[in-house]
Amino acid sequence: MSQAEIRVAVLGARGRMGTEAVSAVDGAEDMELVARLGRSDSLDLVRESGATHIVDLSVPDATEENVRFAVEHGIHAVVGTTGWDDERLGRLQALLAQHPDTGVLIAPNFALGSVLATAFAAKAARYFESAEIIELHHPDKVDAPSGTAARTAQLMGRARREAGVAPSPDATTQDPDGARGATVEDVHVHAVRLRGLVAHQEVLLGSAGEQLTLRHDSFDRASFMPGVLLGLRTVASRPGLTHGLDGYLDLGL
Amino acid sequence: MSQAEIRVAVLGARGRMGTEAVSAVDGAEDMELVARLGRSDSLDLVRESGATHIVDLSVPDATEENVRFAVEHGIHAVVGTTGWDDERLGRLQALLAQHPDTGVLIAPNFALGSVLATAFAAKAARYFESAEIIELHHPDKVDAPSGTAARTAQLMGRARREAGVAPSPDATTQDPDGARGATVEDVHVHAVRLRGLVAHQEVLLGSAGEQLTLRHDSFDRASFMPGVLLGLRTVASRPGLTHGLDGYLDLGL
Amino acid sequence: MSQAEIRVAVLGARGRMGTEAVSAVDGAEDMELVARLGRSDSLDLVRESGATHIVDLSVPDATEENVRFAVEHGIHAVVGTTGWDDERLGRLQALLAQHPDTGVLIAPNFALGSVLATAFAAKAARYFESAEIIELHHPDKVDAPSGTAARTAQLMGRARREAGVAPSPDATTQDPDGARGATVEDVHVHAVRLRGLVAHQEVLLGSAGEQLTLRHDSFDRASFMPGVLLGLRTVASRPGLTHGLDGYLDLGL
Amino acid sequence: MSQAEIRVAVLGARGRMGTEAVSAVDGAEDMELVARLGRSDSLDLVRESGATHIVDLSVPDATEENVRFAVEHGIHAVVGTTGWDDERLGRLQALLAQHPDTGVLIAPNFALGSVLATAFAAKAARYFESAEIIELHHPDKVDAPSGTAARTAQLMGRARREAGVAPSPDATTQDPDGARGATVEDVHVHAVRLRGLVAHQEVLLGSAGEQLTLRHDSFDRASFMPGVLLGLRTVASRPGLTHGLDGYLDLGL
Repeated sequence: MSQAEIRVAVLGARGRMGTEAVSAVDGAEDMELVARLGRSDSLDLVRESGATHIVDLSVPDATEENVRFAVEHGIHAVVGTTGWDDERLGRLQALLAQHPDTGVLIAPNFALGSVLATAFAAKAARYFESAEIIELHHPDKVDAPSGTAARTAQLMGRARREAGVAPSPDATTQDPDGARGATVEDVHVHAVRLRGLVAHQEVLLGSAGEQLTLRHDSFDRASFMPGVLLGLRTVASRPGLTHGLDGYLDLGL
Repeated sequence: MSQAEIRVAVLGARGRMGTEAVSAVDGAEDMELVARLGRSDSLDLVRESGATHIVDLSVPDATEENVRFAVEHGIHAVVGTTGWDDERLGRLQALLAQHPDTGVLIAPNFALGSVLATAFAAKAARYFESAEIIELHHPDKVDAPSGTAARTAQLMGRARREAGVAPSPDATTQDPDGARGATVEDVHVHAVRLRGLVAHQEVLLGSAGEQLTLRHDSFDRASFMPGVLLGLRTVASRPGLTHGLDGYLDLGL
Repeated sequence: MSQAEIRVAVLGARGRMGTEAVSAVDGAEDMELVARLGRSDSLDLVRESGATHIVDLSVPDATEENVRFAVEHGIHAVVGTTGWDDERLGRLQALLAQHPDTGVLIAPNFALGSVLATAFAAKAARYFESAEIIELHHPDKVDAPSGTAARTAQLMGRARREAGVAPSPDATTQDPDGARGATVEDVHVHAVRLRGLVAHQEVLLGSAGEQLTLRHDSFDRASFMPGVLLGLRTVASRPGLTHGLDGYLDLGL
Repeated sequence: MSQAEIRVAVLGARGRMGTEAVSAVDGAEDMELVARLGRSDSLDLVRESGATHIVDLSVPDATEENVRFAVEHGIHAVVGTTGWDDERLGRLQALLAQHPDTGVLIAPNFALGSVLATAFAAKAARYFESAEIIELHHPDKVDAPSGTAARTAQLMGRARREAGVAPSPDATTQDPDGARGATVEDVHVHAVRLRGLVAHQEVLLGSAGEQLTLRHDSFDRASFMPGVLLGLRTVASRPGLTHGLDGYLDLGL
């Protein structure tokens, strides 16, 4: 009786994302779920379970300790928790230098479609005269624009600037109520809030006679699981720190 | 050899819209193009041509005189020129009271699809929890939001208020750069400017579990001609003043 | 202590739709949930509960008996169960003739957005040269096109024919694999099946220079509840039989 | 007085594409239009004009001779004419082997947005459970599906097969009228024909809980010109034969 090569401990297993991850790992034929830890469980359980990988979906306060523990024991880590500022990342990279065979993926977004849409938007932005973003979310969201839209705009704006593309043309002289929305790195960003929606984003690129639209719809948290599984399957072959799931996608075109 | 019942004089015939109207009337089997007048032509040409209808696509300064002349001679008028404020409309209605068999249509918009989209949006607005508008135009437009979007938002907002519908829910507390756009009658309006586009509008209506989207695309001035022809075919059977092409559409549902 | 005027018994209360209806009625301030019946419960419970209204979400075999019982006791009925053929409808109308104060609504679709989209599509179809439908559903659906798309196409095709509109132009001479899709009443219908989707429909109307798009998205069964509540609030004021929720919407434009 | 380094002769200069190319080259600051040839003009005019580049937008019967002439004289060629089968391509490659400094770009499509959309679709296809294509064109088109849609489906289907992705799930058992459309390499392709449209394509990719949509709209032949100019600016630095404009785009992601 053979043992799965990917033996996974889920940390933050009782949260919303954690619950999904538990059942996704459990349903994957090439993986074995060996431990699920909540907030008060000791990290020793990870080692005792024989885990080769952890998925960390805990909380910002706990994630650094969780990942350090894993790396120190040669356990690969796939991390969806936020809170990794430059200082924390620096400490983690120093630690990884001492454990050259261990891989860590820190991904702010596990939805493959969203990661692809952002990568494509950044790549295409320099080939069009105009570029704008519309993000659409449920009306309980407190911030606008969304973090994903802001980051997409930054990548697009930077790519356009580096390629020497002029800012999008705009003859607007009268806009008393701000209908033209926010501007991030010279890219206009519009935020729609609509009951019934979850999380959606549309990148609009236009030149004389043509338009390219890249739209991503997140209907459900289930959309993150293929990305989590892809991370688990890949992280052991990518020692060191990878930031962003796009680093694992085969996007050479 | 029978004569067409609809004999049309086009005023403002050398402008961009006028040129389109001349060829649309010319191509309509049930109409006869009997005169085309430019800025410096005498209105007597209208009478001499035996016109039963005029299409006025001239300029704000000329349109009132043109229409008065038509009404005084019992000639029906389809008017696309702007500049009809309340004072002018009052004078026209007084004149029409003395010519009870003559019809005048003043239409700010002849694109059937746009007129239908606005009417549908106003009708549907009260049945949804959330309502927003995105309008998209070429980047040479100087004002935002577009007049059509502002008017659609007014009609939607008014319909919602009259039906006792609460404003669209919106938990936004952080929006430093104005990504949520303008607000017209409690309806958020977003203005996109993109090279390659002409004039487009999307009305988004959402409730728990569902979304209704009404989108209109104007690609070309040709889109106004079916509305002009519909106006010409209908105006004689609608004596008095009609404001807006929707008055001629069979929209009882 | 006052009693709600709308006291509702839900039949088929343990099914998926029934469960939603129970909590929707329970959450409505102007209604009181007085009974929830499953398959094996006696209809006498409806009378004993003091219900003024029933919502029938049972099964085709039971719905006629349920509704007859309600009408015979002067209880208004809102019915979402399928299986009402002409014979059953005839018997119901005969019964209602003897109970002139009682109202029954039989609605194949309670999603307000879907009902509105269909009504708008039927109304707009005659004003455009071309008309097609794309319906998009989850890939577990066994029939194509969807019943809603087929019915929308029928209404659109009929409206076009009655208005003397020619079939949509189509120069296609080579289409070896059937990319042009199905044709229902001269309206082309395309069926997309995509993991992640629920139930969506796009009506495309085009003329020279313009396009009108009417899109409805159903993300969740929750979308039916506003329609069920609207039915309950309206049915007592509409004695006799009403077929289709659109009969209760204020769609005069 | 300096001479532009890119001196362009346009072949097929009186056709619709040729006319656009003439004015695009004429308007480009870094190029000089040195000759425009029609069907009956001698190729000697190209040499006499001092052209460093040709744009060939002639006809399938003439294009091979035009390009041979250019290559034999060390003139770079950007070719939009169709008709380049394997036999012709083989002869051209043999010729280019003798002229190692000369570049030729043969591009079936010069719309940057369309080229990008196809490249992105091929790249993303393997990451989703379901994949379908909707192409939408004016109703005067005689073939369905469009060549671009068929090619996109082939690239997507091949990428999915190579990555071991199962065919898109589809439970359809009843589809009497063919609403599910054509199938190309296991990818369903739907063709819409609508007055008012030009050339549009939507690639739909779906997995549990998410959708990625890649849409390209061609409104006007003007959309080809940025691609033609990009070809002219790049071809001299890419000796030998390049097939497809995507070879010149920086798509490494």
